[in-house]
Amino acid sequence: MEKNDFKVEKLGANKIPSPYNKGKFVDDDARIAYDSEVSKLEKYAANLDELPSFEMAGPREKIFHDPAWSKAAIMTAGGLCPGLNDVIKGLTCTLKLHYKVPVVYGIRYGCRGLIPEFNLEPMVLTPENVDDLHEYGGTILGSSRGRQDEEHMVDTLVRMNINVLFCIGGDGTLRCAHDVAMIIKKRKLSISVIGIPKTIDNDICAIDKSFGFETAVYATNEVITAAHNESKGAYNGVGLIKVMGRDSGFIAAYATLANSHVNYCIVPEEDIALEGGDDSLLEHLKNRLKDKGHAVILVAEGAGQEFFDGEKDKDASGNALHKDIGVFLKSKIKSYFKEHNTEVNVKYFDPSYMIRSTPAYGTDAVFCMMLAQNAVHAAMSGRSDIVIGHWNDRFTHVPIALATRKRKKIDLHGSIWNGVKSITCF
Amino acid sequence: MEKNDFKVEKLGANKIPSPYNKGKFVDDDARIAYDSEVSKLEKYAANLDELPSFEMAGPREKIFHDPAWSKAAIMTAGGLCPGLNDVIKGLTCTLKLHYKVPVVYGIRYGCRGLIPEFNLEPMVLTPENVDDLHEYGGTILGSSRGRQDEEHMVDTLVRMNINVLFCIGGDGTLRCAHDVAMIIKKRKLSISVIGIPKTIDNDICAIDKSFGFETAVYATNEVITAAHNESKGAYNGVGLIKVMGRDSGFIAAYATLANSHVNYCIVPEEDIALEGGDDSLLEHLKNRLKDKGHAVILVAEGAGQEFFDGEKDKDASGNALHKDIGVFLKSKIKSYFKEHNTEVNVKYFDPSYMIRSTPAYGTDAVFCMMLAQNAVHAAMSGRSDIVIGHWNDRFTHVPIALATRKRKKIDLHGSIWNGVKSITCF
Amino acid sequence: MEKNDFKVEKLGANKIPSPYNKGKFVDDDARIAYDSEVSKLEKYAANLDELPSFEMAGPREKIFHDPAWSKAAIMTAGGLCPGLNDVIKGLTCTLKLHYKVPVVYGIRYGCRGLIPEFNLEPMVLTPENVDDLHEYGGTILGSSRGRQDEEHMVDTLVRMNINVLFCIGGDGTLRCAHDVAMIIKKRKLSISVIGIPKTIDNDICAIDKSFGFETAVYATNEVITAAHNESKGAYNGVGLIKVMGRDSGFIAAYATLANSHVNYCIVPEEDIALEGGDDSLLEHLKNRLKDKGHAVILVAEGAGQEFFDGEKDKDASGNALHKDIGVFLKSKIKSYFKEHNTEVNVKYFDPSYMIRSTPAYGTDAVFCMMLAQNAVHAAMSGRSDIVIGHWNDRFTHVPIALATRKRKKIDLHGSIWNGVKSITCF
Amino acid sequence: MEKNDFKVEKLGANKIPSPYNKGKFVDDDARIAYDSEVSKLEKYAANLDELPSFEMAGPREKIFHDPAWSKAAIMTAGGLCPGLNDVIKGLTCTLKLHYKVPVVYGIRYGCRGLIPEFNLEPMVLTPENVDDLHEYGGTILGSSRGRQDEEHMVDTLVRMNINVLFCIGGDGTLRCAHDVAMIIKKRKLSISVIGIPKTIDNDICAIDKSFGFETAVYATNEVITAAHNESKGAYNGVGLIKVMGRDSGFIAAYATLANSHVNYCIVPEEDIALEGGDDSLLEHLKNRLKDKGHAVILVAEGAGQEFFDGEKDKDASGNALHKDIGVFLKSKIKSYFKEHNTEVNVKYFDPSYMIRSTPAYGTDAVFCMMLAQNAVHAAMSGRSDIVIGHWNDRFTHVPIALATRKRKKIDLHGSIWNGVKSITCF
Repeated sequence: MEKNDFKVEKLGANKIPSPYNKGKFVDDDARIAYDSEVSKLEKYAANLDELPSFEMAGPREKIFHDPAWSKAAIMTAGGLCPGLNDVIKGLTCTLKLHYKVPVVYGIRYGCRGLIPEFNLEPMVLTPENVDDLHEYGGTILGSSRGRQDEEHMVDTLVRMNINVLFCIGGDGTLRCAHDVAMIIKKRKLSISVIGIPKTIDNDICAIDKSFGFETAVYATNEVITAAHNESKGAYNGVGLIKVMGRDSGFIAAYATLANSHVNYCIVPEEDIALEGGDDSLLEHLKNRLKDKGHAVILVAEGAGQEFFDGEKDKDASGNALHKDIGVFLKSKIKSYFKEHNTEVNVKYFDPSYMIRSTPAYGTDAVFCMMLAQNAVHAAMSGRSDIVIGHWNDRFTHVPIALATRKRKKIDLHGSIWNGVKSITCF
Repeated sequence: MEKNDFKVEKLGANKIPSPYNKGKFVDDDARIAYDSEVSKLEKYAANLDELPSFEMAGPREKIFHDPAWSKAAIMTAGGLCPGLNDVIKGLTCTLKLHYKVPVVYGIRYGCRGLIPEFNLEPMVLTPENVDDLHEYGGTILGSSRGRQDEEHMVDTLVRMNINVLFCIGGDGTLRCAHDVAMIIKKRKLSISVIGIPKTIDNDICAIDKSFGFETAVYATNEVITAAHNESKGAYNGVGLIKVMGRDSGFIAAYATLANSHVNYCIVPEEDIALEGGDDSLLEHLKNRLKDKGHAVILVAEGAGQEFFDGEKDKDASGNALHKDIGVFLKSKIKSYFKEHNTEVNVKYFDPSYMIRSTPAYGTDAVFCMMLAQNAVHAAMSGRSDIVIGHWNDRFTHVPIALATRKRKKIDLHGSIWNGVKSITCF
Repeated sequence: MEKNDFKVEKLGANKIPSPYNKGKFVDDDARIAYDSEVSKLEKYAANLDELPSFEMAGPREKIFHDPAWSKAAIMTAGGLCPGLNDVIKGLTCTLKLHYKVPVVYGIRYGCRGLIPEFNLEPMVLTPENVDDLHEYGGTILGSSRGRQDEEHMVDTLVRMNINVLFCIGGDGTLRCAHDVAMIIKKRKLSISVIGIPKTIDNDICAIDKSFGFETAVYATNEVITAAHNESKGAYNGVGLIKVMGRDSGFIAAYATLANSHVNYCIVPEEDIALEGGDDSLLEHLKNRLKDKGHAVILVAEGAGQEFFDGEKDKDASGNALHKDIGVFLKSKIKSYFKEHNTEVNVKYFDPSYMIRSTPAYGTDAVFCMMLAQNAVHAAMSGRSDIVIGHWNDRFTHVPIALATRKRKKIDLHGSIWNGVKSITCF
Repeated sequence: MEKNDFKVEKLGANKIPSPYNKGKFVDDDARIAYDSEVSKLEKYAANLDELPSFEMAGPREKIFHDPAWSKAAIMTAGGLCPGLNDVIKGLTCTLKLHYKVPVVYGIRYGCRGLIPEFNLEPMVLTPENVDDLHEYGGTILGSSRGRQDEEHMVDTLVRMNINVLFCIGGDGTLRCAHDVAMIIKKRKLSISVIGIPKTIDNDICAIDKSFGFETAVYATNEVITAAHNESKGAYNGVGLIKVMGRDSGFIAAYATLANSHVNYCIVPEEDIALEGGDDSLLEHLKNRLKDKGHAVILVAEGAGQEFFDGEKDKDASGNALHKDIGVFLKSKIKSYFKEHNTEVNVKYFDPSYMIRSTPAYGTDAVFCMMLAQNAVHAAMSGRSDIVIGHWNDRFTHVPIALATRKRKKIDLHGSIWNGVKSITCF
């Protein structure tokens, strides 16, 4: 990555003294090295200016938007994730209590809440009506998938006089937010667009963790123990669990390390063979059942797409339909053991909705609160087209283009995956 | 019901003083009225001898089996249920510590553990190796479905010198236990066969509650809240949950009363219309979504079998295959709203394996312990062909034939169902 | 007990058709036998009229109070208990939705909410503002201890035109409710006073279980496991837990049966020796530590008051002050082992506030809902001076005088205590 | 801090090829910058050699100890902390499965397990007997406080031929481990001493988080909600909670941010006034109760020691005895309100033993596993006198002297404390 990838957009010069009085300000240009390994730093020693580095997040002494004239709006988009309500609460309280922004809107049902045709009246958010919000999973604003026409979205922002927009959402939502910011720039408007990256899969590039991931990993504990109990309760019992992880298997890998009753952990990053040879999943499973009588398999939803080659159905437009790896594996295991005249009892678990709809707890809830506070600081200081990230124990400003460039993946030679390999049998 | 339905089989006269010294003994003939409503008692006033009544469970001063010569065996059969391990622990400890029975076997994988062909070595159970068992869900013995040849099962009991057999299982297992007891009787053997009725559905006739049910109802709380959060998080969101309840909807009904986020509770006992008229499920749902924007539906797995008339697939033998009401409803809702050009977002939850594999907690665990102690008292005092029941706050002896005669159902005019109707919208 | 103890007060004849349409009505005079053991029934065979029996609870076809003219009030008094909010919600919904009572007040902070001097404005309760109440522990009405002047309380009821009063509270509150009912009778007013007995200790006479108890027993599981871990983590570690149980040790006994890591269970019903002989607590403990190295002691708060003879402090009025058995035992164990030059590490747990402030869950929450519905049925049908009880699996009307006559205690020769003795070492 | 503070001790040259084959090796000299802010890096630009930096942890291609000849030992010391058993399991499995170390001992009850006089036989740890360990709180090894004679400890290591010692413990234990390492150095022995820093308070210098902290913060959620319910349930109710935090208030601060029902958060880092002026705790509380009627106070155990000046008792040696701030505040609040003739109802919670004895969950359990694997890598590669740390998302080697130099404290001007100030009223 290069220095320019980290460049942060500002709407203009910061001239207004910040009303925030809860702590020390961060220098407006403070930066943090992207790579802090000494061997990597060495090649920039002669020219530290070129060092790839993040702008640090935090409150600035001078801000861009005049709080008294500001109107903020918050939206949540995409699937549920633990912590959405904490972020909404954190944004609302920081805007209202610390920056004295008079109006905070909650946009209903994601991007469509900004499109007049949907006729979705925004909520008015106040510290009072968000007070208990941290106790609830889900999002009080509602959410939706898919993008809307960005020009129309900007029209609505202008019509409603909104100068600060917070988008809590995943990859698709952030790309949409980026396009909104581009239109704002083209129209020479002074509207800050700040993203809070939401991905329960923890797969956002250039950000070391995303909110909700920690709670999600905690929540897998119970289902793994349940699958273990079911597998031991039946003759040749197999507990098969599908967890979230469309492109990256972080939840599966961490869940396995946290509750080592898992015997097989299957992630999108690693291709595996189903049959043919002792190293293939089904033959290894057959041998394990002969030996131990039970097994637990944990599979990320995006894993094993290679199994579907040539098998995928097409939709009306000729696109390959995404296959359900959990259901596929369940059926493959059954047919394989039937062929081998061996009894097998597969119990299938699909806990994704259970996991993603819980509230965020503990340090994960704290992380949501901190993300929200830093998002408000970023917005009020005139940043736009960025998300709030986290790196080397600090909060950072990450250009949306960088955050959405590619997915973060498990390093198959790194310590997490090696840890998984160490405790699973495969 | 008549007096004779309650008659309990004894293997012979009780002549041996009980070694049990932990409390007062129950009179060998103590009985408890089946119906204690005064208006029902009145017709027996002239002849109380004819009053239908249960034999009371509990320790007897004189017992039938000589503990020093006894060998006991325990089996678990059918699907998992919270509390199986508590019952195993309770049986083992009562047999070994209070009756000083020298050997307690754990039969592996249900009835098949008594069939030599399966080659399943029994476990030897001791107070030491069951000490932590109450912390674990599932069953350490393993379980299996289906019956085995009862003559062969009795052969094994004879060959292993087992004179006390405990069968923890559901309807099918208990019928099998009854047949085993009949063969024992025909062969004039002195083997006690005692059932501990296992049905997470709480649907055993003549027994007011079954172990595991209470824990199962507790465990539904979280999934109902999750479905509620998912339904509110999406535009026209519908949280659809399938819970256990093959013939009776007790779990669904109690879960609804316990966490009233449920808007529609559908049970096997009540036929409902899917379409046609404001009272049909789908039209009512459409109106509710228009009004409130979200809904939670809770359906027992055995509900709605009437929807499948004419749609059921046949298996190789021409039998109708059981349909999955959860998957069926999910698809019906989608197609109905598609026909009506209305967006709907259905989130489907199937938590059954999660629920049934947890440990029993609290008063439910206490109930398991008490069932187990009373089962040992019953066995040692020479009862056979019975299950341990609970009625009017006492433990009872219930002939297997009575317990398996028919299923207990929700009274659609009783207070539980009226309570459900009061808080749901349908 | 005699027939007359069960006699229920009615305000007058029931002439108004009930608007309740959710199920079948209960016969106005339906009764249920107090003792359903056949041997007990026999002596009444000749004269069933004299059989001690409860009036059954449930909806009546004709009612006494005209719903359209009714004003109801609800109060909660005494310490917190799981389920208070469920009962408040159940009362409110049944009154408003099924009987169409136009106004339901929530009295603030117990009895004092009816005394003008405290200046506590009542809340107005509606199905909408109680909708989420089942998710919260505590009581939204607030509570207080102690009685107020009953004449003044009745004055307030009259002034506010309240004709139906629900008192959710323990012994003291119920006695107060009884006195209120007596004054109402003396003044010839038509006000129903209905109690819902609240005792987390499950110690109300003539009632087989009280709400909150089940949840409380569930909640002890975690603290017992914690105490077990602490005891094993230290050299000669002793985990000492004090739980609720002022006069009766039901929570302690059930908790021990539910999580058998407890080695010593000490309840008010059984006197124990602290020192002197192998059977005394401290010597037995010393021997156990020598043998096993760790122990868990569970003590009910009302246990061991005999240890304080001659040691009790007096308050200003000369009354003996209640001593804290938990703190006392902790200090006694330490001093005893110091005397014997033996290291001991006592970890003391006092989880009472944690336990009593959780929401009621599962079947316990269902029980709250049913109590509330039956309380409304009782009130509207003109009953007064009663509490809603539960007996032989039915809900009952129990005169307050009977319910408060004496405490229910653990039968030291019964199955619960024998079960405890079986699994503890003492 | 200076470069030399980070210098890591090695026992000798690494010549043996590592048997570890689960992933890529870390360069033996890899380092990571202590401070990665670009402005801090600038002053070292000319001389990056002087940059303060940590040695990175991880597997090395060549190792020092010959696994086949190695004997490892593990001890846990000090108070319980979530994750102890996970670390023990992780160490055992990595030693046995990846490095094929033939013998792993578990030392009983901390340092005293190495002193012959205590006669404490070590456990032999194997992958089999630690398999379920992650499900249990506490430590199977037992623990103890206080140091033992280090010369004797080294004697035992020598006598038992132990060449790798893992010490899981806090400040005191780590200082002891350092002294052991010094003696080993003086005697020219080849024994690696590796610490895994245990502090539930998360207050170890130069380490960004310690295991157990995350789980501890999660576990505070329930008690804060309980205190909130108790405070609202009583007239002028005050829920007062004491949590761990002897020198640093991280648990209190994070718990407050995670469950914002806390109104007052009191930590050792900040002095507060009890009385005198609107900003004093008691007057502020009085005003809040007048306004809202309830409050929750969360206090770290080490806070408010300034209140005890002149009040502290002295022990036999003349040292001031540590006072219990929770009990002190409870009594102060009561007396203050009594003086002001105002009713107050204080409910006091002391959940420390409950919190510290739970198992580690989720990402915290993963962290334990990773710490353990890196500790084994460090030991086998001949490091000694270090602890395994975590910094900038990598695991590091931190000299014990650096880790124990001083406590990490909350920065009263930093974002965490500002966040707390933002949501509390004080």
